[in-house]
Order: sequence, then structure tokens, then C-alpha cells
Amino acid sequence: MDGMEMSRRQALTGIGGVVFGFVAGSGLMSTALSTSLAGAQEAPMGEVPSLPWPYPQLDPEAAAERAYAAYYAGGCMYGAHEGLIGELRETVGFPYTVLPTRMMEYGKAGVVGWGTLCGALNGASGAIYVASNDKTRDKVIDELYGWYGQEALPTYRPQIPKFEIDTSTATSPLCHVSVTRWCNATGFKALSPERAERCAWLTASVAKYTVELLNEQAGVAIAHAVPAAVTQCLACHGRSGVKENVHANKMIGCAPCHDPAKHPGR
Amino acid sequence: MDGMEMSRRQALTGIGGVVFGFVAGSGLMSTALSTSLAGAQEAPMGEVPSLPWPYPQLDPEAAAERAYAAYYAGGCMYGAHEGLIGELRETVGFPYTVLPTRMMEYGKAGVVGWGTLCGALNGASGAIYVASNDKTRDKVIDELYGWYGQEALPTYRPQIPKFEIDTSTATSPLCHVSVTRWCNATGFKALSPERAERCAWLTASVAKYTVELLNEQAGVAIAHAVPAAVTQCLACHGRSGVKENVHANKMIGCAPCHDPAKHPGR
Repeated sequence: MDGMEMSRRQALTGIGGVVFGFVAGSGLMSTALSTSLAGAQEAPMGEVPSLPWPYPQLDPEAAAERAYAAYYAGGCMYGAHEGLIGELRETVGFPYTVLPTRMMEYGKAGVVGWGTLCGALNGASGAIYVASNDKTRDKVIDELYGWYGQEALPTYRPQIPKFEIDTSTATSPLCHVSVTRWCNATGFKALSPERAERCAWLTASVAKYTVELLNEQAGVAIAHAVPAAVTQCLACHGRSGVKENVHANKMIGCAPCHDPAKHPGR
Repeated sequence: MDGMEMSRRQALTGIGGVVFGFVAGSGLMSTALSTSLAGAQEAPMGEVPSLPWPYPQLDPEAAAERAYAAYYAGGCMYGAHEGLIGELRETVGFPYTVLPTRMMEYGKAGVVGWGTLCGALNGASGAIYVASNDKTRDKVIDELYGWYGQEALPTYRPQIPKFEIDTSTATSPLCHVSVTRWCNATGFKALSPERAERCAWLTASVAKYTVELLNEQAGVAIAHAVPAAVTQCLACHGRSGVKENVHANKMIGCAPCHDPAKHPGR
């Protein structure tokens, strides 16, 4: 271990102004653990800087194209996340080089087919929390989710599409609602290649709009606010309401799941 | 840069069997980008092994306690993710040392208050995709989500709780549904400290059950399958159905949002 300790010290002291060092050569492989694990615990472990990491201006279309390609390599969540982090990896380098973006494959189809949160939004949100600070990141997410629920999507047509894709309004950040509304609007089946292409365009669209928002950061304006119909429901069901039983304080609409005609007192 | 190149070569060659090196000392700081970015691009960037990363047996209760504490440090998604990754960081070391788990704070309250996917599930899913292979990871997630929707939660009581917490059945992996059902069952408000404590217990419960599943990995059994009421709906609305407009192929129930009495033909 002496050689490694030496090199770590050199890495830490060899460059003026170095504030963190990053060395690991412990031979740790996912398929050969038993002996190397002990060595890894003794070896100096990698250190990464605290979040947020540097964010330069990115090219929205480059992120969109990268996201479109990544969708077909690992699904919607990986697609949007890799679209953004991949651009940062190429532009900034370390520390983005150490992010295992493949982990985000779990978010496909609202998490491996559970139809919950749209994976493109899930993956973009993770990237936003890597590259934006605590004064701007929630505003970027709020505008992204508001835009997603209220605009006709997808908004981005990739340079070499597999099919031409018509739009629909998702009305919700949920995969199941978003996809079903598109299927109902276009007549395509949920497991069709056209639906996959729609989600690839959508992943690209989310990556592109996220870059446009991140490029503005502190100056981001909320152009797609929570609709009045939702804030009206939350006046009673949200914070300090007479029936404060809803933790969500943002949504595009309540009516898709809750029938206003069935509300007590109606 | 010569000293850094030297140290990188030493790190790469100084230990027998080394297959990846990891050196960065470029002075990259999130608040001082202009000059250091160029240097970072030239510097040797860190490399991490492909997923999945090593998974030894973990202690479910240790992960639960770590998740409970992390909930109060960064919310539900960070709580579950850090509960799991933190145990792996301590047990395995590198490469877990390079994961910036703080990025997962975005998932709090179903992503910064949007009430979508339960953050504990979101954070656990990310950890599962880091530490489990492509033959086991989706099965672990399916059982985790099925358990979450069908069991009375939370199942884990932390060693030093702030309050005692009653249980409810979430019926859904969504934050909004899960929290509202607990509020309605217990009478506590959605923004109350008791509700936060319930979500802290829940985060701990999710981390604990995830460890129990990961400890079995390939041997995991699906004890909480998709209910027949859902597969019945999907017979028409899912893959190859006469009205294939639903992308989700797993859910705990359709009735919370869709009134069966309103189905055409009824």
C-alpha cells in the first residue's frame, strides 16, 4: 500500500490549490470480492466535492439528442439523466465522470412498469439536484413539472426520428396518466413501437427544457403555475386547511382521480 | 500537470491486479469555475466500475436506523437511499464512497411536494439498481412495491422514536395516496410533526425490507403479487388487450382513481 499512499499524497499536494484528492486502485471488482474488499477498506477511498457541482451553460439541443439516444439504451429515466449528466461529463469532466448514471435505469415506465412518476422527470430531477443549488433547484423542478403537465408534448423532434409523433397533454407527472392520454389521443397501443418513440421524444423534450431552465438558474420564471382549481382544493386539504390531509402542494389537476360531484356537500 | 500524471500512473500500476485508477486533484470547486474547468478537462478523470457494485450481506436494522436518521437530514428519498448506500459505503468502501447520495434529496414528498412516487421507494429503487444485477433487481423492486401497497405501514419502530405511530395501508406507491390514507386513518394533519415521524418510520421500514430482499437476491420470492383485480383490468387495458392503453403492468389497485361503476358496459 505504500506506493498508493505515496501517489495519493502526490495527487493531493502536486497541484496548487488542490482541495480534494481522489485515488483508488484497489482492484475492487463486482465479481471478485472476498479478498479485495478488505484491501478496499484500507485503501484511501475516493472523495467527491459537495453538491452542487459546476454547471456551465449547456446546449439544449445537444442534451435532447443525447437523451433521445440514451432512451433507447436504458429507458426514460436513464435517458433524461444521461442526456444531462452526459453533457456535463463532456463539458466539465470530473466530478461528473464518477456518476454511475446507469443506476437510473430503474425509473423506466414509472419504475420498472409500475407507472408511477414519469421516468424522464425522475431522471431530470436527479440531474437538477446535482447541478443546481438550494435556492434554484426546486424552482427549476416546479416549472419543469408544471410545463410537463400543461403543454402539448412532446415538444422536441429528434434529428433522425423513427416515426412522426403527434402530441397530447399529460395533465399529470405520472407515467400511467401521461402514456394513457397519449394512447387515447393517437390510437396507438401502450406497448407499440410508436409509443416507445413518443416517450423517446418526450425524454428528449424534458432534457431540452431542463437545460433551458438550468441555463437561466436563478432567473427562472414560473411560466406554468399550479392551476387555480388545485389551489382551491388545497385551501381546505393543504397546509392549515380545515381538512389538512394532502401532503402534495403542487399538482396539475385533482379531477383526473377525484370526482368533484362526489365531494361532500355537493 | 506533470506531478498529477505521475501520481496517476503510480496509482494505476502500484498495486498488482489494478484494473481501474481514480485520480483527480484539479481544484474544481462549485464556486470557482472559470479557470479550473479547463484544467479539469485536461486532468485524468475518475473512473468507476460498471454496475452492479459489490453487495455483501447487510444488517437490516442498521440500515433502518441509518435511514431514520437520514430522513431528518434530507427527506424520505435521501433517507432510504443513504440508509442503504451508507451501509454499503461503510461495509464495502469504494466505489460506494463516490456516490453523491445528497442528490436524492429531490424525491422528498413525491419530488419537492408534487406527491408523486413515495420518496422512500424512489431512493430504495436507486440503491437496488446500484447493488443488484439485471436478473434480480426488478424482482426485488416488484416485491418491495407490492409489500408497500398491501401491508400495514410502517413496520419498523426506531430505537428512539419521537412519537408512537399508528399504521395504515397505502394501497399505492404514490406519496399523496400513502400520506392521505395515513392522515385519514389516524386523524393527524399532513404537515404535522407526527406525519413527518410516520414518514421517517416508513423510510426506515422501506430500507429494512429492501435489505432483507437484497440479502436473498436471486432467491427473492414475490410474496405480494399484483392483485387479481388489477390483472383483470389489464387483461383488456394491458399488453395485447382489446384496449391496450395502459403502460403500467403492475399496481395495487385501479379503483382508487377509476370508479368501476363508470366503466362502459356496466
